[in-house]
Amino acid sequence: MTNRRKRVLSGTQPTGRLHIGHLVGALRNYVALQAENDCFYCIVDWHALTSMYSDTSRLQDYVTEVAAGYLASGVDPEKSVIFVQSDVKEHAELHLLLSMMTPLGWLERVPTYKEKKAQMKDKDLSNYGFLGYPVLQTADIIIYKANLVPVGEDQLYHLELAREIVRRFHHLTGSMIFPEPQAKLTVAKRVPGLDGRKMSKSYGNSIYLEDTEEEITKKISTMVTDTRRVRRTDPGEPEDCPVFALHRIFSTETEQADCAAGCRSAGIGCFDCKKVLIRHVLEEVLPVGERIRKLKEDGDYLKDVLNAGAGKAREVAAATMDEVRAAMNLKGR
Amino acid sequence: MTNRRKRVLSGTQPTGRLHIGHLVGALRNYVALQAENDCFYCIVDWHALTSMYSDTSRLQDYVTEVAAGYLASGVDPEKSVIFVQSDVKEHAELHLLLSMMTPLGWLERVPTYKEKKAQMKDKDLSNYGFLGYPVLQTADIIIYKANLVPVGEDQLYHLELAREIVRRFHHLTGSMIFPEPQAKLTVAKRVPGLDGRKMSKSYGNSIYLEDTEEEITKKISTMVTDTRRVRRTDPGEPEDCPVFALHRIFSTETEQADCAAGCRSAGIGCFDCKKVLIRHVLEEVLPVGERIRKLKEDGDYLKDVLNAGAGKAREVAAATMDEVRAAMNLKGR
Repeated sequence: MTNRRKRVLSGTQPTGRLHIGHLVGALRNYVALQAENDCFYCIVDWHALTSMYSDTSRLQDYVTEVAAGYLASGVDPEKSVIFVQSDVKEHAELHLLLSMMTPLGWLERVPTYKEKKAQMKDKDLSNYGFLGYPVLQTADIIIYKANLVPVGEDQLYHLELAREIVRRFHHLTGSMIFPEPQAKLTVAKRVPGLDGRKMSKSYGNSIYLEDTEEEITKKISTMVTDTRRVRRTDPGEPEDCPVFALHRIFSTETEQADCAAGCRSAGIGCFDCKKVLIRHVLEEVLPVGERIRKLKEDGDYLKDVLNAGAGKAREVAAATMDEVRAAMNLKGR
Repeated sequence: MTNRRKRVLSGTQPTGRLHIGHLVGALRNYVALQAENDCFYCIVDWHALTSMYSDTSRLQDYVTEVAAGYLASGVDPEKSVIFVQSDVKEHAELHLLLSMMTPLGWLERVPTYKEKKAQMKDKDLSNYGFLGYPVLQTADIIIYKANLVPVGEDQLYHLELAREIVRRFHHLTGSMIFPEPQAKLTVAKRVPGLDGRKMSKSYGNSIYLEDTEEEITKKISTMVTDTRRVRRTDPGEPEDCPVFALHRIFSTETEQADCAAGCRSAGIGCFDCKKVLIRHVLEEVLPVGERIRKLKEDGDYLKDVLNAGAGKAREVAAATMDEVRAAMNLKGR
């Protein structure tokens, strides 16, 4: 083996039910990575507070949801460390220390900062903690000395910022403690929702991992397609069709080619095309949903996994913090 | 007794040697308060990082300095809890949680924020943590459910902000956990330095608590006076003289009246006036300096005091955090 094992860190916010966007964008990837790396998969409940601070009543349900989703998709607690951020208080301490060294300008320039504020108009995100989100994210990553962070394109700037903060820490303290974390760009397959926009809980356009066979079938059957196919005899363009974008994720290449040709020639109707997709989505999603339900029923097992994960994570985080405190002359008593 | 005991919190930044400004502005007050209140006196090393982040090499010396200064001035570890902020990690956790609820605008409006940034031109204070200073201060206070915070006038806005954050926490969580901390305004006697400006380490105009008899005598002897007294025969105006401002702090009322009259009539020279002041300063400061030196020599005793204090502080802080986590639905595992 020429490839050295890497330390991987990734996190999911417990802000709602998991949908196929999570499965495709993150969870499939988590499973692939754990075979050859030391993976830390975090449920970042403190991050969730940046948008959920005014109503946390369902927070624990969502923590359970994400933990169950991890396991149900194949993340293996024997191979990977699965834990909840707030169980490892060291993240908060490192966040505070890094905050003292992080120029405000770096944070104000984060592209997702203004974007997300503009998007989420129903929530007031003008809080100090929301601005500092990338600092907390940096702490999450470097406290485990992670080399690799699987991210989508929209997170590349955050990783760049994490590296800047690491360099600044090294420069100011003279202690080279942290590796500079690198982004592992996940193949950026955009997962469209039922209405063609990005799949998102807040748009109400999602296929959830726990949806039943009937729900999934109905959702895809009524999903929008290329608007040019008004009548069965109108040809369409697959590249403009959200259903085809899902084919790219779930179907075989032959099926993709067949559906694309049939669409462009009006040789098949949209429902013919959707039937193929429905079969694949059911095949992949139903067993995951079934496992999620079982894991939720046996809550004790999930708790045990999270407790064991927190213990392992804490050990690594505490060792890093000893180094950090020494580097900043905070040690002594 | 009609007066109920109150919980008091105050903190000092370990950013340098202690001078008579600390003695008069804070320490005398600490001693007075501990007789009838439960006092928590914190050495806020994390706060010190807002300005010291680029060079922490002397941080532990200054922590020792402040701890010794507390004890030497009469703060009694049997009556008051003396501890170092970074020994109680719960402050960092509460700071993070409060940051999620604190509007940026509240922090940007803090008058001391822009002032201090403008004053300290030799240091770059444009960091995220410096902006969040009042959030950390709020955490320091309310984690002990303090009712009373002795402050100078320049800190009144911070206390107002702490109350706003408390109200917002109560409003958002529906859990009324914290008392709204009230400012106990210390009699705002401005302590002028040797050059007439505010006494401050960074101005090099201070009388330090560990200064020797010779140093104190020389410093006051060469201190600036009312500039109208160019010659011995020119009358002066005590209200415009920094030496007289120190008289107000250290000398008896009769002595103050005599010096003022002698100044206005040119009946006494500046040195006659200074001699009275020197005697009083030596009387109060020399024994404190002597005790500080002894405490520093016996470092183990100081460590024991700080360890015991951290233990007591942690117990209170941990109990508060249990309530905070429950209120924010962060409890569960």
